[in-house]
Amino acid sequence: MDKIPLNIKVGVLGGGQLARMLCQQGQRLGLQVHILSNNKTDPAALATPHWHKGSINNKSTVNSFCKKMDVVTFESEFADTTLIPKLRNKFYPSLKNISLLQDRLSQKKSLVQNKLPTSPFIHTDKASEVIHFYECHGSFVAKKRMFGYDGYGTFIVKSKKDLQKFLLNKNLNNFIIEKFIPFKRELSTLCARSKNGDVQFFPLVESLQKDAKCFWAKGPVNCNKVLPLQRKIKSYLKKLNYVGVIAFELFETSKSLYINEVAPRVHNTGHHSIGSCNIDQFTAHLYCLLGVKLPKITSLSGGFAMVNLVGSSIKKPQLAICKNSKLHWYEKNDNRPGRKMGHINACSTSADKSLKLALNDLKGFKL
Amino acid sequence: MDKIPLNIKVGVLGGGQLARMLCQQGQRLGLQVHILSNNKTDPAALATPHWHKGSINNKSTVNSFCKKMDVVTFESEFADTTLIPKLRNKFYPSLKNISLLQDRLSQKKSLVQNKLPTSPFIHTDKASEVIHFYECHGSFVAKKRMFGYDGYGTFIVKSKKDLQKFLLNKNLNNFIIEKFIPFKRELSTLCARSKNGDVQFFPLVESLQKDAKCFWAKGPVNCNKVLPLQRKIKSYLKKLNYVGVIAFELFETSKSLYINEVAPRVHNTGHHSIGSCNIDQFTAHLYCLLGVKLPKITSLSGGFAMVNLVGSSIKKPQLAICKNSKLHWYEKNDNRPGRKMGHINACSTSADKSLKLALNDLKGFKL
Repeated sequence: MDKIPLNIKVGVLGGGQLARMLCQQGQRLGLQVHILSNNKTDPAALATPHWHKGSINNKSTVNSFCKKMDVVTFESEFADTTLIPKLRNKFYPSLKNISLLQDRLSQKKSLVQNKLPTSPFIHTDKASEVIHFYECHGSFVAKKRMFGYDGYGTFIVKSKKDLQKFLLNKNLNNFIIEKFIPFKRELSTLCARSKNGDVQFFPLVESLQKDAKCFWAKGPVNCNKVLPLQRKIKSYLKKLNYVGVIAFELFETSKSLYINEVAPRVHNTGHHSIGSCNIDQFTAHLYCLLGVKLPKITSLSGGFAMVNLVGSSIKKPQLAICKNSKLHWYEKNDNRPGRKMGHINACSTSADKSLKLALNDLKGFKL
Repeated sequence: MDKIPLNIKVGVLGGGQLARMLCQQGQRLGLQVHILSNNKTDPAALATPHWHKGSINNKSTVNSFCKKMDVVTFESEFADTTLIPKLRNKFYPSLKNISLLQDRLSQKKSLVQNKLPTSPFIHTDKASEVIHFYECHGSFVAKKRMFGYDGYGTFIVKSKKDLQKFLLNKNLNNFIIEKFIPFKRELSTLCARSKNGDVQFFPLVESLQKDAKCFWAKGPVNCNKVLPLQRKIKSYLKKLNYVGVIAFELFETSKSLYINEVAPRVHNTGHHSIGSCNIDQFTAHLYCLLGVKLPKITSLSGGFAMVNLVGSSIKKPQLAICKNSKLHWYEKNDNRPGRKMGHINACSTSADKSLKLALNDLKGFKL
């Protein structure tokens, strides 16, 4: 399909910033993006007249919302797929893929089975096996299988003390335990796969985490190991018949690239694309759901950067007048330490110059 | 002020595409942009939960809407200022300025009084004087004083036959009659003046009209005569204490620049700025109303272009997947010949390259 179908109702389960930006970008394409969320002051509810009050964890609410939509997508991969009605070909990514990728255990197994590079891991309910893994590797990262994000549900175990603390967790099999990868850089490769099979990668991005959450992302960056990996990812997504945008968070060591995590949705490291690419990740995700022919995705400038605006207090924030960046404020009700409140995007002749411009504008904010 | 005030309610009288884009860009800044318009399917009503049903021509509706807002602005300069309550310092541009500039007669007189270059004109109710003006100049343009736009209310008189036809109009004093300027190019200089007095000009734009409405705009273009004119415009706006974005449509001849028309609002020839400038015209207009310190406005790329998507039938339009442009569809209910249905923006290394990219994407649309 090389046209955007008009008057299509796209439902989004969830009302946070990702849903908000799907709304905002969808509007420009003439799509009706509908939101299901609890509160009319949710970020996405404030960006559309098509807001539906209701919990995404209530089976009958979800059912009646989905029935009204032409196509439905997810803000978060942690949707409870057992609550979602079996409506044929209405959900993208498919419920099967969401189920597979939302649980870090099945995600990890799937990566290994498909020969995608990822760190060694174990899954066990036995403390002795955890201790053995620690002794073999000298450190590890334990990640909750479900509902982890931005460092929540992640334990980095680098000492015996950390280990003892981690072992206090009752159900060890709620975690996967991975070898800690001493990476040089964290990279992120975002990919869009349309219902018609077209695949496009966004420019490769480097990101920096601070307190276990993304602080900035910049690009495009070079990495000669990424092309072979992208070829494998393309085959993997074909095998899954995956539809939508999907993010592969990567660790780069001096020798290799490892997939750290897979997020089957639009992703924080793709927010730059609103200003930096011919097609942004939200538009691309919507195109994928509609089965649209995907144009080649390219950067519009030599470089780009995105810096998250993260709360550092509970005080009312102060928003700067940016000189060189574009503000995307999410209109969250409350400022909170560690909460992603918005982001700023800058474009310039290189990744580093863009980052410098954005970090300079960041100084004006009090969050 | 170097911060964006939070939780400010900005009211917009009107619900078309300009109001829509004020909403969309305001949302990103964390501003609550409220719309007063008749129909919940109006372009701006479809971009916000803050839509208020009502006519901008009903005094009590307008009054109660304005009272709820912190600041109010206008989508169109043709607001009936007699219906608008006298709420101190709430309206930008001021009602005085809107009144002055909405009537082409007082606008023209004001330009002449302030020594801004514009074509010779007459205003008369006597056919004999119109005939005399025609005989002196060999041609003229008659423009309705109020409610003219996109060629509606404009008569180009180039022959005796045109003249006879024009003279059938009953109230000649509803028109101003201007000398026809045989221009080389049509240019447009957009300016933002903040409540705090800061003034910034957008990059100079060339536009091409087709069937008396803007077909495309591209920039930045060079014109060595524009700087002295911009200095005069700056003084003029200071004298008026004008607040907001304002567009000066210009005719360039081999010798001079003439002001064709002044539009005291965001303008079609500034739509490119959403993608091409560090600050777009809608953001700039909102900044002006809030009295924010205006950063220097610059292009993000070597060139940019905007092409309007104009209806050519009453059939349901077909929207292309743009390869290099960004689509801004206005979600109007009905396609109609001559109706502005949306626009596409492209950026590249030069104005002409950008225009080429946009015109290429235009081919995919059926409007």
